[in-house]
Amino acid sequence: MRMYDIIIKKRNNQPLTNEEIKFIVSGYVNGIIPDYQMSALLMAIYFNGMTDDELAQFTLSMTQSGKIFDLSHISKPKVDKHSTGGVGDGVSLSLAPLVASCDVAVPMISGRGLGHTGGTLDKLESIPGFTVNLSDKEFFEQLDNIGVVIAGQTDDLVPADKKIYALRDTTATVDSIPLIAASIMSKKLAEGTDALLLDVKTGNGAFMENYNDAVSLAKTMVKIGKDCGKKMLALITDMNQPLGEYIGNALEVYQAIKILKNEGPKDITELVIYESAKMLILAGVEKNFDTAKNRIISNLTSGKGLEKFKKLIEVQKGNPKIVDNPELLPQAQYCEPVTSTISGFVSHIDTKAIGFACCILGAGREKITDRIDHSVGLRIVKKLGDYVHTGEPIVYIYYNDKTKFEKAKNLILSSFSITEQKLGKQINLVYEEIS
Amino acid sequence: MRMYDIIIKKRNNQPLTNEEIKFIVSGYVNGIIPDYQMSALLMAIYFNGMTDDELAQFTLSMTQSGKIFDLSHISKPKVDKHSTGGVGDGVSLSLAPLVASCDVAVPMISGRGLGHTGGTLDKLESIPGFTVNLSDKEFFEQLDNIGVVIAGQTDDLVPADKKIYALRDTTATVDSIPLIAASIMSKKLAEGTDALLLDVKTGNGAFMENYNDAVSLAKTMVKIGKDCGKKMLALITDMNQPLGEYIGNALEVYQAIKILKNEGPKDITELVIYESAKMLILAGVEKNFDTAKNRIISNLTSGKGLEKFKKLIEVQKGNPKIVDNPELLPQAQYCEPVTSTISGFVSHIDTKAIGFACCILGAGREKITDRIDHSVGLRIVKKLGDYVHTGEPIVYIYYNDKTKFEKAKNLILSSFSITEQKLGKQINLVYEEIS
Repeated sequence: MRMYDIIIKKRNNQPLTNEEIKFIVSGYVNGIIPDYQMSALLMAIYFNGMTDDELAQFTLSMTQSGKIFDLSHISKPKVDKHSTGGVGDGVSLSLAPLVASCDVAVPMISGRGLGHTGGTLDKLESIPGFTVNLSDKEFFEQLDNIGVVIAGQTDDLVPADKKIYALRDTTATVDSIPLIAASIMSKKLAEGTDALLLDVKTGNGAFMENYNDAVSLAKTMVKIGKDCGKKMLALITDMNQPLGEYIGNALEVYQAIKILKNEGPKDITELVIYESAKMLILAGVEKNFDTAKNRIISNLTSGKGLEKFKKLIEVQKGNPKIVDNPELLPQAQYCEPVTSTISGFVSHIDTKAIGFACCILGAGREKITDRIDHSVGLRIVKKLGDYVHTGEPIVYIYYNDKTKFEKAKNLILSSFSITEQKLGKQINLVYEEIS
Repeated sequence: MRMYDIIIKKRNNQPLTNEEIKFIVSGYVNGIIPDYQMSALLMAIYFNGMTDDELAQFTLSMTQSGKIFDLSHISKPKVDKHSTGGVGDGVSLSLAPLVASCDVAVPMISGRGLGHTGGTLDKLESIPGFTVNLSDKEFFEQLDNIGVVIAGQTDDLVPADKKIYALRDTTATVDSIPLIAASIMSKKLAEGTDALLLDVKTGNGAFMENYNDAVSLAKTMVKIGKDCGKKMLALITDMNQPLGEYIGNALEVYQAIKILKNEGPKDITELVIYESAKMLILAGVEKNFDTAKNRIISNLTSGKGLEKFKKLIEVQKGNPKIVDNPELLPQAQYCEPVTSTISGFVSHIDTKAIGFACCILGAGREKITDRIDHSVGLRIVKKLGDYVHTGEPIVYIYYNDKTKFEKAKNLILSSFSITEQKLGKQINLVYEEIS
């Protein structure tokens, strides 16, 4: 078998066999296939896509390139959630403990922020002492003991994805639906859960800006998961404006605490409840959506979810006191409002630009090696459809550096379109479910 | 400027600027751009092509990556010919001395055979002592003294093409019309001639099997050449059957001598005369095609062309006695006919398979590092439209190894379609001229 012949086949849009796909993945991980042949193949996949059969084998081969977690000794149903990422998407922080408070195990392997999007691990690390680096033993024990764990990916989990993703990142082959689907699903399959909820974001702040692309990615991932025997549900959710009020690391932890006290912003709280309820159904602990929703709401109001979050922080070596004293979280030195120069309705928000404004402040990374400032970020007080008077704040900026503040402020001002008439299309939190 | 952004642009089918193209070529030659990014770009070019402007700059940048010959001190008009290659295409061997015998300088930098096609350098090296490795000084002096030189490409001529071609060869990005055109034309522009005749072969033994692809390649190359101030003419010629009678290295030199004695096979002799006459017109030494043709024919019958060939061999250290005593050329030990098992008309020849049969005998290379046997090859005695009786020879095989002979024989038998009725489309030597 020669990689050259495989590249020609894919380039000419002929389907690859299972044996050929196994050869590609193992050959690349083992260093037999050089980067320059792999990148040519990835670009050919970018143009010609992959069939369902190819993608199933590709994902499976990636998963099998490393360790696969065996969670069979954990008696509770095991469910995870994955979001394709957006601005202000701190859902996991409150959702994971909330679902775990309903007798479901949530083994969540998360990622870091890159570009305009944040990452769950970065947010959690704003909690003093919190560690996301757990050994397998620690991971299993914690899941067994408290039913929830949020950790980083270890080196021996899906090494093929690590190596392929690094190559895609330098060869402009990241935004290919089958490659994205295989990358996400190979990691999720290696986690060994029974079920998975996918939150596929669409809109101007999402990786899948185009609605049909989001649906296509969701369907592709659901099919891969189902073929591997997982219970799957994908939600197509909105990312045409930041989710919730707060964007940043410590700020989103602060907001998560508010959500778990049932005092959070309406949109993100609603989404947390919705997705948590769906996870209870996927886990099989609830059959009816309304009952599931009520159980989740009851664990919000009773503080059971917050209690689980506190426990999670404690076990992962963070300071649990931040739950009752959020001022123990890193605080930015300054906070200033960005005020509107005109009156009117917020009719459009360039969400990606808002994400980049946060990045400029230091809350995110441009390169994977950049260090981040956990204390800085934004509070969005005017959202789509809201009326703003001249001089009224639309965003508050939490910052430590005046120059960065000025840059971020200008970017934020230019990302809000304020018009006399209420404009723009209908925004829903959840557009569609794919199962 | 970042290669990543350039790959994205090309992938998204946005035109690259001249600066970007200069950056690609110089960056790759200098090792700043790694192979894996270049191969991703090449695959994106395979899918999205190049605009005329991109291609002109790409070719120019490749040419400028190395030395460019200055032939201004040579007073005669300087014309070269390039063929895209085929089976039995030994035209250059007789054409170059023939044109040079008409007071035109022919500085020909040729290549080696690969796959099913032969190469002029390999054929000339079958002449005992003949060298194709000339210094620049030797090249210029010989061109000045005898008006013709056929040599190999030196390392400092178009190094960008060497490096890019080697990468294309392992990443399935060879058969892209703009990349082929740039590769050929960058080398031809570096030769510093005034004019160039392109012989673009089409048919089942050509790289451009499809007629429209051949026309497209021809037009692309003519445009590049003209944009650089060269006089250009491209001919679309047939490669649905081997050209001439002989295929192999020494065998094609033997045939070239016969052509130069006006005793050669009808088809290849006609093509040599046609292309030579066109070159005299391109060179400006003749204005009218019939006069040019008569001058060429007169130099064939007078032996002036053959005399020039003898001189070429002598100066390039070959044994000129082979012209009068062709038995001094390497001879295969055995010669056996392949006979037809049925009677009928030759209605189809799988020309590529005939080329590969020659390769099996040892006349060609599968890999660039393979050694070749100059003595072996084929003589094709039945061509398209000919009638064959059962038991009559269709091909003679010149060989040194019985096992290879058997393999080649079976391949040849299966490449000839012999039918009761005369079938197949009209075959012309030259289909079209593009200027």
